[in-house]
Amino acid sequence: MKVVITGGTGFIGRMLARSILARGRLTGPSGAQEEVDAITLFDAVEPPVPLTGLDARAKVVIGDIADKDLVFGLLDRDDVSVFHLASVVSGGGEKDFDLAIRVNLMGGLNVLEAARARAGAPRLVFASSLAVFGGSAMPAVVGDTTKQTPQTTYGVTKSIGELLINDYTRKGFIDGRAARLPTIVIRPGRPNLAASSFASGVFREPLDGAPCALPVKLDTVMPVLGYRSAVAGFIALHEAAPEALGDDRTVNFPSLSVTVEEMIAALRRVAGNRPLGEITHQPDPAIAAIVATWPVATEFARAGALGLPVEDSLDDIVRAYIEDFLDA
Amino acid sequence: MKVVITGGTGFIGRMLARSILARGRLTGPSGAQEEVDAITLFDAVEPPVPLTGLDARAKVVIGDIADKDLVFGLLDRDDVSVFHLASVVSGGGEKDFDLAIRVNLMGGLNVLEAARARAGAPRLVFASSLAVFGGSAMPAVVGDTTKQTPQTTYGVTKSIGELLINDYTRKGFIDGRAARLPTIVIRPGRPNLAASSFASGVFREPLDGAPCALPVKLDTVMPVLGYRSAVAGFIALHEAAPEALGDDRTVNFPSLSVTVEEMIAALRRVAGNRPLGEITHQPDPAIAAIVATWPVATEFARAGALGLPVEDSLDDIVRAYIEDFLDA
Repeated sequence: MKVVITGGTGFIGRMLARSILARGRLTGPSGAQEEVDAITLFDAVEPPVPLTGLDARAKVVIGDIADKDLVFGLLDRDDVSVFHLASVVSGGGEKDFDLAIRVNLMGGLNVLEAARARAGAPRLVFASSLAVFGGSAMPAVVGDTTKQTPQTTYGVTKSIGELLINDYTRKGFIDGRAARLPTIVIRPGRPNLAASSFASGVFREPLDGAPCALPVKLDTVMPVLGYRSAVAGFIALHEAAPEALGDDRTVNFPSLSVTVEEMIAALRRVAGNRPLGEITHQPDPAIAAIVATWPVATEFARAGALGLPVEDSLDDIVRAYIEDFLDA
Repeated sequence: MKVVITGGTGFIGRMLARSILARGRLTGPSGAQEEVDAITLFDAVEPPVPLTGLDARAKVVIGDIADKDLVFGLLDRDDVSVFHLASVVSGGGEKDFDLAIRVNLMGGLNVLEAARARAGAPRLVFASSLAVFGGSAMPAVVGDTTKQTPQTTYGVTKSIGELLINDYTRKGFIDGRAARLPTIVIRPGRPNLAASSFASGVFREPLDGAPCALPVKLDTVMPVLGYRSAVAGFIALHEAAPEALGDDRTVNFPSLSVTVEEMIAALRRVAGNRPLGEITHQPDPAIAAIVATWPVATEFARAGALGLPVEDSLDDIVRAYIEDFLDA
């Protein structure tokens, strides 16, 4: 079978591709385990650094997700599964509303339609986000049954994606699943336009010996998940039996609710003797305002029942990053 | 100022146009009461019967709401308000998914973009529906804070519309409001493709001396609202101060939760000596299946706070229909 990962050259896309290649098999549209012989990493721009850890089964395709013909061309086999990760991120969507609608909504519809055009209702896992929550009516803890009142265009398009995943699945066009992700840490590389970018930077820059300017206060609370658990969760959600998911295909992923202060403490504990760059506070009202609209804790009963993993502590997340990206 | 009503030649659109013409004024983009000197009733098809009760201020435009240029042409003044009622209905959307996406989602985006293109963030009232609720996770009573898990494509597009109304408003593109309607009764004329069509037919056909074949059981419970209250509610929601609405612009409209048996009892009570056509039961599994996904009762605290009206009883609804359409 073939796997298509949109947003495939991004961090999670690459890690997911590696994990699928290592695993070798996924549940195909037949319902049986099938060998993955091709994996396409589709993205909008060439990766800034050459992709590593892939093999001859993997192919990178660069293009515009709003180009319907191109997207249909990616799904050129009926034995296909899709991980739809491509997205304009939160901060980027606030800066360019039209781009967020074009990429996230129209691009998302292209991916759904391309999957619908295949025989056998392919499995499709959509990356949603806790940014579907927000606003004055948001309860302190959000979860699988909380009303969605997003306060960013990014969150709105993710909420729309969840609705469409449910309806395309109900109609039998696809076998859809949506992974509602907390902030994923620790992302290597450069900061991005996501308002949550600092939650990786606060670990990454000091470990690189570089200074880190925090845009938010130390007592800011965020639900976070390690990238290893996020990738394992994507695959577990893909593999889950349709009956286990029912008529609401979005699963609130597990998370750890932590303060920025706890992030820094975990960094110092795990870093040991490593020299660390300095962490300073440089308030960014635009970032702080977006982060303030997000939930501080989540309920994830369905994810637990489906066996989706979460790290035991922030320390585990820091250790994994050092192992995968600094000591490797 | 100008008023544009999409779906304007439908029953609610016509009644709303008449009510606005009689009233003469609405709150314009300036925030002050302005005289309505033009009202455009936009719809997809010519009305089956000539429209009555209008005057020289009213104009009918027929066209395709998916035609962006046409929709932009309707909103040709900055002093404009929009009531966006046009929609493929529930049963119709289940029969033609692509049409529901094209008209409800893409057409809706055209209306939002046309309003955004005007200066001054025009007021825009969107007709949503209780069909945004449904599925296995739906509580017995739904309301302003209930998660939306629609089980029809119609409901999905209405839920998406609510999200977009909130975001276009948050961005300052429009001053949007969404009216989440229960089943509106008693609609005159012919049955339509809405799965709820029988809830008007059970009154209308017998009062016409015609037989009525009920597709659902007598103990089926539905939240209903009389059309007079629905129209008054649309106008009250348009007139509400932005501060009274906050960051979630959808208001669950009030309703009476009644059984089909109670509908028939009210009909018999109010009809008095009028001869009534026979009511029989002809189960329609497709209709019953859609209706079964809808909530049976609603909570409408916000509507109450905004002063949106609801009839005291079904009897009032039957009396209004006889007065407006049979005795007139």
